[in-house]
Amino acid sequence: MAVQSVPSKTLLISAIFSLLVGFPSQANSDNVEKLTTASSNSNLAYEIVSSLTLEVGPRIAGSEGDKKAVAWAEAKFNELGFDKVYKQPVRVRNWSRGLSEAKILTPYSHNLVVSALGGSIATPEKGLQAEVVMVESLEALQQTPADDVAGKIVFINKKMERDKAGKGYGPVVVGRSQGAIEAARSNAVAVLIRSVGTDNSRFAHTGAMRYSPDVPKIPAGALSNSDADVLAAIIEQGNPVKLSLNMQAKEHGWQTSYNVIGEITGTEKPEEVVLIAAHLDSWDEGTGALDDGAGVGVVMAAAKLIKETMGSPKRTIRVVLYANEEFGLVGAKQYVKDNLDDLKNIIVAAESDFGAGKIYQFDTRFAEQALPFAKKVSTLLAPLGIEEGSNTATGGPDIYMLPSHGVPVVSLRQDGTEYFDYHHTANDTLDKIDLEAIRQNQTAYAIFAYMMANNDVDPRPAPELEPVQ
Amino acid sequence: MAVQSVPSKTLLISAIFSLLVGFPSQANSDNVEKLTTASSNSNLAYEIVSSLTLEVGPRIAGSEGDKKAVAWAEAKFNELGFDKVYKQPVRVRNWSRGLSEAKILTPYSHNLVVSALGGSIATPEKGLQAEVVMVESLEALQQTPADDVAGKIVFINKKMERDKAGKGYGPVVVGRSQGAIEAARSNAVAVLIRSVGTDNSRFAHTGAMRYSPDVPKIPAGALSNSDADVLAAIIEQGNPVKLSLNMQAKEHGWQTSYNVIGEITGTEKPEEVVLIAAHLDSWDEGTGALDDGAGVGVVMAAAKLIKETMGSPKRTIRVVLYANEEFGLVGAKQYVKDNLDDLKNIIVAAESDFGAGKIYQFDTRFAEQALPFAKKVSTLLAPLGIEEGSNTATGGPDIYMLPSHGVPVVSLRQDGTEYFDYHHTANDTLDKIDLEAIRQNQTAYAIFAYMMANNDVDPRPAPELEPVQ
Repeated sequence: MAVQSVPSKTLLISAIFSLLVGFPSQANSDNVEKLTTASSNSNLAYEIVSSLTLEVGPRIAGSEGDKKAVAWAEAKFNELGFDKVYKQPVRVRNWSRGLSEAKILTPYSHNLVVSALGGSIATPEKGLQAEVVMVESLEALQQTPADDVAGKIVFINKKMERDKAGKGYGPVVVGRSQGAIEAARSNAVAVLIRSVGTDNSRFAHTGAMRYSPDVPKIPAGALSNSDADVLAAIIEQGNPVKLSLNMQAKEHGWQTSYNVIGEITGTEKPEEVVLIAAHLDSWDEGTGALDDGAGVGVVMAAAKLIKETMGSPKRTIRVVLYANEEFGLVGAKQYVKDNLDDLKNIIVAAESDFGAGKIYQFDTRFAEQALPFAKKVSTLLAPLGIEEGSNTATGGPDIYMLPSHGVPVVSLRQDGTEYFDYHHTANDTLDKIDLEAIRQNQTAYAIFAYMMANNDVDPRPAPELEPVQ
Repeated sequence: MAVQSVPSKTLLISAIFSLLVGFPSQANSDNVEKLTTASSNSNLAYEIVSSLTLEVGPRIAGSEGDKKAVAWAEAKFNELGFDKVYKQPVRVRNWSRGLSEAKILTPYSHNLVVSALGGSIATPEKGLQAEVVMVESLEALQQTPADDVAGKIVFINKKMERDKAGKGYGPVVVGRSQGAIEAARSNAVAVLIRSVGTDNSRFAHTGAMRYSPDVPKIPAGALSNSDADVLAAIIEQGNPVKLSLNMQAKEHGWQTSYNVIGEITGTEKPEEVVLIAAHLDSWDEGTGALDDGAGVGVVMAAAKLIKETMGSPKRTIRVVLYANEEFGLVGAKQYVKDNLDDLKNIIVAAESDFGAGKIYQFDTRFAEQALPFAKKVSTLLAPLGIEEGSNTATGGPDIYMLPSHGVPVVSLRQDGTEYFDYHHTANDTLDKIDLEAIRQNQTAYAIFAYMMANNDVDPRPAPELEPVQ
């Protein structure tokens, strides 16, 4: 689906206005016009990301940066005038990357850019040296005779394809999460993957990996795509390639982090909740501007703009900034566990966690009776270049488990064509955010949340979704 | 000027053929057709860069990599069947970068990506800490009261503009080369510059800097553009910003490197020389694929293809791979000094040193009588999307001093729109080279060198050019 170009501000406002005149919504059309105007003139989402990335920076779960981020979020909610600001504790592992070095020793000498995968154990203190065996995918590794792998460093050289919806991610990320397990089954000494990213650059893309209790833990890292090319080309010349790897990642035990929550209390039905979310943690090498500073900025700004422009809505708008998304959705799981009785009050949930590209499609997971209303919201979003989608939304990663509890979700799907150029790298910084694009996200979230919070529509219960694995 | 699209191979060959039929050149039109076909079917330039970057990698002057590169170049010339292969010794300083770290300490903590500028002294062993004073340019620094600078780290935050011809480079690079001198005049303790590069990424762009005997030497580094943004934004908040800088660059004294030269001996006028050049050295963080592996590949391949396709030309084709371009054009200066009596025999010189983008314009610096011939060569290059330029060529950096000795030069001007995204960074690697673009360069150099080496045209003496500073 093509992204439509966004019309000028005036055209946009008139278009939304004329749409509202046509249907008997409880949302006041003057207010939507005001909201759109206010958002069109506001850099708030961008300013929030800027504040978070400059004043806090990297914030991997359990780190000093994470603690700063929690304090920052609480202060920012208060500064923005949210009615209720609170935290829910979440126990998180604190892992640190430390030194990460890789070097081709023979037949030629090359320093390679490598990052430890999140959760990897360290190599021995002085590193390890071994021959490299290259496989084209996790599946190929599973089919490689153990004798070809034992004692070696496995290099999984699977390339991620660029795609607007990020469809290239799934088929490749299994190598990141499962590579160490499969390599260890054949007694490899370490595993390196080609970065799960679409750039050709010398930034390595980190990300979470797993171990299995039935096989030994081995160190796992990602090579930048440029360095993966070098290694592959040298291996393809046919001579044995020997590599040294030195990664000094560490576990620092358990820490307390927090889901940080800000609410605009509803005036008529305060117990009914429109939940919009992002995650507060980031990886450690960049400043987490795209992942997920952008989401934090968008959802905080959308709620603030609604209150500022029209006063408090009928239903409560709850902005949840989840802890530790990157290392297993820990904050999101804790949220469900701690709020089981309250989940029934969530009218709808949405998460912004796909960078700062423009939104191009509005998907829902609503009960049948609310589909006409979904269509109306879609119509209101259309002037922003957003197309009507399907009723098969899964929401973002942190709200993926909500539909199995009956909670309706929506996906405001963003253009992710360039997202995986920066995702989980040191290069995920503020300068990657386009002001106009993030403002479009802010406007879309504001319109969506406003419409949901100022109507009696009830999209519950959500059509069933496979429970999270 | 827009780059024309390159027509299909067959069209291209027919076009060149029909052009040649029309004028009484001494170059045989069948041969130019053969040459174009051969080049269109050859990946040789790319394969040469690939070999250099994989088998040698980084090769800063005087380093082990540089020594490997010299041996590689000699072997490659021989392998390609050049008639004469020889080296001319060049004394070079060997400088190594070592550790380069920068960190904002207050008001927020940020690790910054920094690279020492080439030739910088080290900081004290444990680094230095100081407040930062930001200036917008070298000129602004010169106008800043010394009291505002003394004891501080100067940050020159001038942004390079993107331009096809690289015109953004000159106005910014003065800050790199002269920044330490001007900052030291006001008793600064160090200087950091915003990278001289057009990317927004966390790669720092290194490059040569100078000291002056009349002021103290201070350490000099470049911040990545993303990090320069962070530092500037924090400074603009108005509170004092304190930074730590630790760079452990070292001088290792003088080493012998070499200009490596391969010749295809002329059959009729072997003493008359068509010189095509590139430089063999590179910076140390990338593999020098664009700067200047691409040039090395293009000029070696062009000469080889001429010999292979048509046998030896009438005049000698001399391929010169200069030593140590990056640190003051040392090999090029040595070449002039050692070959003063021979310079009069150089019919024309060209250097490929602007990455691997397509050539879009053919400039000459020819004596009047040869301009009709320049026009003919232009006409032959037109099917490749190359426009006729002016007679004000300066050639590449290593041949810039030749016109002042009467040697004609040409510039086969390349599209440099993206060149300065990678120039002098760790990200200058093989994957940045587009096969079709480098092949177009190879074909253009082959046609140009073939035409110059198989005609009696004499473009000497070159119109005067300001001598190199």
